[in-house]
Amino acid sequence: MKRYEELAESIAKSIRDEVFRGGEKLPSVREVSTLKGVSASTVFKAYYLLEARGLITTRARSGYYVNNSIKKLKPLDVTKTEEVGPHQEVDVSELVFEVMEATRSQGCVPLGAAFPSPLLYPFDRLAKMMAHSVQKMDPWCTVEYLGPGDSELRRQIALRYRIDGINIPLDEIVVTNGALEALNLCLSAITRPGDTVLIESPTFYAALQSIEKRGLKAVEVPGHPVTGIDLDLMEQTILKHQPTACWIMTTFQNPLGSSMPDANKKRLVEILKKYQLPLIEDDVYGELYFDEKRPTPTKFYDDEGLILHCSSFSKTLAPGYRVGWVSAGRFAKKVQRLKLSTTHTTSIPVQQTIANYLAKGGYDRHLRQLRHTLSLQQLCYFNSVERHFPEETRISKPHGGYFFWIELPQKVDVLKIHRAALEHGISIAPGPIFSAQRQYKNYIRLNYGHEWDEKVDAAIATLGTLIMNQLTG
Amino acid sequence: MKRYEELAESIAKSIRDEVFRGGEKLPSVREVSTLKGVSASTVFKAYYLLEARGLITTRARSGYYVNNSIKKLKPLDVTKTEEVGPHQEVDVSELVFEVMEATRSQGCVPLGAAFPSPLLYPFDRLAKMMAHSVQKMDPWCTVEYLGPGDSELRRQIALRYRIDGINIPLDEIVVTNGALEALNLCLSAITRPGDTVLIESPTFYAALQSIEKRGLKAVEVPGHPVTGIDLDLMEQTILKHQPTACWIMTTFQNPLGSSMPDANKKRLVEILKKYQLPLIEDDVYGELYFDEKRPTPTKFYDDEGLILHCSSFSKTLAPGYRVGWVSAGRFAKKVQRLKLSTTHTTSIPVQQTIANYLAKGGYDRHLRQLRHTLSLQQLCYFNSVERHFPEETRISKPHGGYFFWIELPQKVDVLKIHRAALEHGISIAPGPIFSAQRQYKNYIRLNYGHEWDEKVDAAIATLGTLIMNQLTG
Repeated sequence: MKRYEELAESIAKSIRDEVFRGGEKLPSVREVSTLKGVSASTVFKAYYLLEARGLITTRARSGYYVNNSIKKLKPLDVTKTEEVGPHQEVDVSELVFEVMEATRSQGCVPLGAAFPSPLLYPFDRLAKMMAHSVQKMDPWCTVEYLGPGDSELRRQIALRYRIDGINIPLDEIVVTNGALEALNLCLSAITRPGDTVLIESPTFYAALQSIEKRGLKAVEVPGHPVTGIDLDLMEQTILKHQPTACWIMTTFQNPLGSSMPDANKKRLVEILKKYQLPLIEDDVYGELYFDEKRPTPTKFYDDEGLILHCSSFSKTLAPGYRVGWVSAGRFAKKVQRLKLSTTHTTSIPVQQTIANYLAKGGYDRHLRQLRHTLSLQQLCYFNSVERHFPEETRISKPHGGYFFWIELPQKVDVLKIHRAALEHGISIAPGPIFSAQRQYKNYIRLNYGHEWDEKVDAAIATLGTLIMNQLTG
Repeated sequence: MKRYEELAESIAKSIRDEVFRGGEKLPSVREVSTLKGVSASTVFKAYYLLEARGLITTRARSGYYVNNSIKKLKPLDVTKTEEVGPHQEVDVSELVFEVMEATRSQGCVPLGAAFPSPLLYPFDRLAKMMAHSVQKMDPWCTVEYLGPGDSELRRQIALRYRIDGINIPLDEIVVTNGALEALNLCLSAITRPGDTVLIESPTFYAALQSIEKRGLKAVEVPGHPVTGIDLDLMEQTILKHQPTACWIMTTFQNPLGSSMPDANKKRLVEILKKYQLPLIEDDVYGELYFDEKRPTPTKFYDDEGLILHCSSFSKTLAPGYRVGWVSAGRFAKKVQRLKLSTTHTTSIPVQQTIANYLAKGGYDRHLRQLRHTLSLQQLCYFNSVERHFPEETRISKPHGGYFFWIELPQKVDVLKIHRAALEHGISIAPGPIFSAQRQYKNYIRLNYGHEWDEKVDAAIATLGTLIMNQLTG
């Protein structure tokens, strides 16, 4: 990242944290230059960048001002779910596929996408690593590595756990084809068809699909937009519905954006231990934090091996390479065997490439850059939504990841908006795909992981118009 | 392949086909040289190679003779299975894992291995292709390719089907993490827990594991060691047990080595159509034929889309890369969606590498070499088994693939042999892992896919001794 980008990012962060408020005048170029010990031209470039992204405005002969949003959107409240229903046979896959297939068409403004822009990842460096790894590959490793995965990759993953203070033995780690396979294998390892799984609401639609495929029932516990799953309600639900497993995204939850505070994570582990309930912890966004440090995985507090901690490199390093893993606690052997009889092993040249990249460094530098970019983009998209969406809109402001969860006025039907938006070449992720009960008819998930530009701003404006039209129509 | 290797291979084939019989004198070096139009030194090298492999012997001042086996083993008969049992809850996974884990230890003579020697594959050329492919990879393809797989790879696969006279539309093909994932996805697509699946006996253990994992029942129909599944019995079984799906390996069946004649494949399709039964056709060995042409997949005769034809590159080109596929007929959309919600997509750089290799040629040349090597090794191993195993032994002589199925005297308990052999650093695949009813207590599967040498010969001799000891003990 260049010096002026860093500076822009730090100013943007101050705007985000409301250190600089809407309408307020920013320090002059000379002041910033002196204060930060950078050249005036660096400050000019930083201000220019922020202006181009719609965050600040120049006023002739006066200076730079933080853009005043036309309106100030309120933060999200806890969703008023209907009383947690009885065990729910899940039947949402068809809708999810319909939405996913529709939004796949190229040239769409991908506000509904599940992935951030692939341009944020070091493909060239990965290509070099891959060329090197595959050239050095010992043919015999293709018959020797079975199930759990390349031992050097597992070592590198264990080393990263150490950074977060978690000691994971190598043989607890199973390398998978992306986190999605890890999650599916875990679900197979700890449930039998007919069982009930406790999930949060709203929830990642792949969890619903996995539950549906395996003939399981789901019981949903509402999540708070800032602090995640409601633990009191969770405990009541355990007593009432006796689930055999939980599946929760504890950090930068998809779609809510919530992160459980450490105290809640600790209490969550106490609950798991009390009822001897295994937890599938989906932690694929944990590395994409905007604050000082990585939010601690709940796995950190687990001293009984009850947590199956799943993650991947698909959102942090190598989209499309399909490398994920699970650290499966006391269920590791079972998951290993399921892996062996499901897809045998994860592609070996790919595993060795990722292992090589992790070993040769550059990963942390790349992650820092990625986090900066995403946090800056969040600001730009947020600003744009504030300008274009109706006043009653409520929006999450997550401290990481690349999704907003947006509540629209009660009357809005987002499935209709979804279809209308597609005709304008815009995708969104409509709320009902995130619920076994197809709730959230007036919610959308919005991806801010793609570069913000005028086309995106126009797309968000179009969405705003479609919403207004529905309200007045 | 060098000229002398080709010559050796052709002589070996004549021995295999009993054109040259045991004890018979071979043509002199001069005769062969004239006949084939090659130099005398080429003939010498070919004879030397055959001698080194234990197929022929030099007698001083007399010439070369085909080795006389000490005994002549009989071909396999149809296994006398007990009356086809009632629907069988399958519970064989634990035993399979035990065997697989035990045989994983390095340095073992891998007679029980599932894969042939990795040295038979063009890893260097693949490495170059991969370096090239990944360098050219468009980052955007990582978010655009979902589910069914890289379109160029699917096109290359469709082109190979054309060689066999089969027209497969691209959107019927789903690229998977090896054939194993394809088989599992197919089983999920066409069954629900509790259903009955018709399989052959003996059967590939992964089929048993998949059936067990999904909570299905299995009904077994005996296979003939030369012509495969018994179609009369199959039809009776359909009427009696009403399976909802079949899973059959029609060519070079694992472990039997049988291949269904074309007439049987045609009749099989008629049966499927009559009962509207879908068939998972596992065809991973079809390219490894020793005769003139590739055995036709049953899919060729299917005009109703009832056959889900699964195969992979793991045994023909790129072990450890984990690329397979299914051409799923009328179930294609369902399989695509299952793929999407199970492992999302197959690793993209790997798919592009294989596509590139197929496009740039060399695949057919490599396959010819591979087939030659395997057929020569079959001969060497066969000869060794004849020399070292008891006279009552019966053995298959498949026209492709790399497995023998061997029937030992009734009294032998191969699970005991398996454990004793491991202590001598030798692995075998014991019969009971190939049966839902744990039959085949006196059968083993033996891999001849690794280079034949004195160490292998000694291992087969040791096995022979262990068997004899058990018989006399």
